[in-house]
Amino acid sequence: MDSNTLSDVRDTPLSVEEVLSAVADPRAGAVVSFTGLVRDHDSGKGVAGLEYSAHPSAVEALQSLVLKTQQRPGVVRVAAVHRVGALQIGDLAVALAVSAEHRGEAFEACSYLIDTLKSTVPIWKHQIFQDGSQEWVGTP
Amino acid sequence: MDSNTLSDVRDTPLSVEEVLSAVADPRAGAVVSFTGLVRDHDSGKGVAGLEYSAHPSAVEALQSLVLKTQQRPGVVRVAAVHRVGALQIGDLAVALAVSAEHRGEAFEACSYLIDTLKSTVPIWKHQIFQDGSQEWVGTP
Repeated sequence: MDSNTLSDVRDTPLSVEEVLSAVADPRAGAVVSFTGLVRDHDSGKGVAGLEYSAHPSAVEALQSLVLKTQQRPGVVRVAAVHRVGALQIGDLAVALAVSAEHRGEAFEACSYLIDTLKSTVPIWKHQIFQDGSQEWVGTP
Repeated sequence: MDSNTLSDVRDTPLSVEEVLSAVADPRAGAVVSFTGLVRDHDSGKGVAGLEYSAHPSAVEALQSLVLKTQQRPGVVRVAAVHRVGALQIGDLAVALAVSAEHRGEAFEACSYLIDTLKSTVPIWKHQIFQDGSQEWVGTP
């Protein structure tokens, strides 16, 4: 992991301040952050809670994706932290930030990072609804 | 201004925490923030400092743009604050945040907000370079 990136998978609460501070850099003119939160509903049903589980390879897969994102044109620094374990409504499941020279590069890289994370990093969501039903939503 | 939006133009330091907290909402599954910062260089020249000036109509133009952004599909809350006056390297010139049900909607609306702000809200940047030269960068 080089000093221009931060990448972690952990079972403690996340903060957007951590990823924003990790991408601060005087060369950057634009910073885009993304946070994914536990909503109070999904697919029209009330959500009671959920749990994220990661395959042991998720840490390395996320680190490799973060490095790849940092190599995109204009990108200065990249940070990505994913939470695992039991989460409550409003908790952050994932927090990302990208700093870049210009805003288009920052938006593009941050969007690439979350889309690719969802489709390639092996972290699964187990969602429990208020009606007692549940579902697994998996990647990849 | 309704309770789902925040919009301001001011001459005191901005914080990303303010716009992030303004868009927090249990209905939202995704939050995207954008901050524009004073870089240490531009067009290949060192930047010594800069000043932003707003036309009096900028406050109303920003408020109207924020309301329009909040009405986009899936968008829950929108916040936009622009700074005016003299800024130093690393200072935030603009801080925006959008919360939405899903991530695509949040990215799209935040990107629309900054692009449209730059092209329609009358705030000008007066940039002073280390070599003593200067330039005005305007938006209509």
